[in-house]
Amino acid sequence: MKILLTNDDGIYTKGIEVLYEHLDKDHEVLVVAPETEQSAVGHAITLTDPLRVKPINRNGVFFGYAVKGTPADCVKLAVNELMQPPPDLVVSGINLGANVGINVIYSGTVSAATEGTILGVPAIAVSINTFRDADFKPAARFVRLLTLQVDRYGLPPHTSLNVNVPAIPEKEIRGVRVARQGITRFVEKFDRRVDPRDNVYYWQCGSTPPLEEDGDTDASALARDFIAITPIHHDLTNYDFLESLRSWSFPGISE
Amino acid sequence: MKILLTNDDGIYTKGIEVLYEHLDKDHEVLVVAPETEQSAVGHAITLTDPLRVKPINRNGVFFGYAVKGTPADCVKLAVNELMQPPPDLVVSGINLGANVGINVIYSGTVSAATEGTILGVPAIAVSINTFRDADFKPAARFVRLLTLQVDRYGLPPHTSLNVNVPAIPEKEIRGVRVARQGITRFVEKFDRRVDPRDNVYYWQCGSTPPLEEDGDTDASALARDFIAITPIHHDLTNYDFLESLRSWSFPGISE
Repeated sequence: MKILLTNDDGIYTKGIEVLYEHLDKDHEVLVVAPETEQSAVGHAITLTDPLRVKPINRNGVFFGYAVKGTPADCVKLAVNELMQPPPDLVVSGINLGANVGINVIYSGTVSAATEGTILGVPAIAVSINTFRDADFKPAARFVRLLTLQVDRYGLPPHTSLNVNVPAIPEKEIRGVRVARQGITRFVEKFDRRVDPRDNVYYWQCGSTPPLEEDGDTDASALARDFIAITPIHHDLTNYDFLESLRSWSFPGISE
Repeated sequence: MKILLTNDDGIYTKGIEVLYEHLDKDHEVLVVAPETEQSAVGHAITLTDPLRVKPINRNGVFFGYAVKGTPADCVKLAVNELMQPPPDLVVSGINLGANVGINVIYSGTVSAATEGTILGVPAIAVSINTFRDADFKPAARFVRLLTLQVDRYGLPPHTSLNVNVPAIPEKEIRGVRVARQGITRFVEKFDRRVDPRDNVYYWQCGSTPPLEEDGDTDASALARDFIAITPIHHDLTNYDFLESLRSWSFPGISE
């Protein structure tokens, strides 16, 4: 396949390099990734600033394009401009830090994959469950396997796969779990300060509590040393609530 | 109710002012909104920069707090710090420009509402279907009605209401339609340029094509001069695909 490889930690990180090396064995891979870290940008796109694009070498060889923009910008620019015809698959990662539960909606890594599916290209997002420098090879090897399955079976329209890999030695990984998105979330704390000119500002800190969910969720699988795969789409409609909402009345609005 | 009012166009805009005036009649309203326009930031949050907060007056009276951050930042900061106990409802808008179809995932307006529901507070996002300066009063009057219904019936957990109002004279509005999220999307175009130092950059322009959807979607209701209400949640799992995905095999991964 022809693969667009991107991420949200930036083009100079280890995660995307290791993934490139593994995917390059079976596929034609082009890297188009943010020039700098873009964590927690969610699905932001850049409309008011120019997107600077510059070719990057690694070990003296062309590696890909660095974009001054968000992960979603990278995917839009690559699919529409830099790769014609468009790629067969978008892969985003390997992200340092799990993207599970509600946190998925803040994730630039997952948003890059979602952007692929919006543009009609199947996509995979992959994250590893640690914020420390890690051994990315088990995750990269798994994604290599997964790309072959995606090539074989295809994905439904508008659907990407959100993959989270435990940060443990490969032989301790217990298997793969297909899981729904859970409810793990970032719990914020605000640190209030006053600057030397008496202006108030806050630092947003906070953390994600331990993955203690039960059931067939992404966080639960990961906590039990499984690789979690969640099929993600971008239809946010709460279908279960449509009917009761239709019974609400709005006096004075024509009809 | 105690209402947190925010938006993504910024605290100095007409849309939030008109909405404030209408909601203030029934409720206790605090405005916490971005200092500057934050369109298309999606669900971005600010982790690496401080969030500056400053009280704003309007016509000599305290109006609310301007935050140097995204709409999601404003909601997190308000619910966790500036309003204790937390509000009963988050209202976000009135946004200039419809937020329908796939565009919803780029929307700061909708993300502010989603952030409310993540923090356990019911929420409403409201947009008007024009980018020009508009008469916000019909939309504000409708949201006032809607807040009373939300107060009466409540909303399911993790669910907000995404409201889009036609930009037409109030008496031409045909009624209210509860609708699912459609597939209208921003279609981007990239304008390639070279700066005086021979660096390549792109402007991302593009537009949303006319609202020509059939069926019970948000865009379709809006195009037919109805107010569209879509219940939104943040579970991105594609449940229909879970089972087939479980049949994929991954040779070499333990189990």
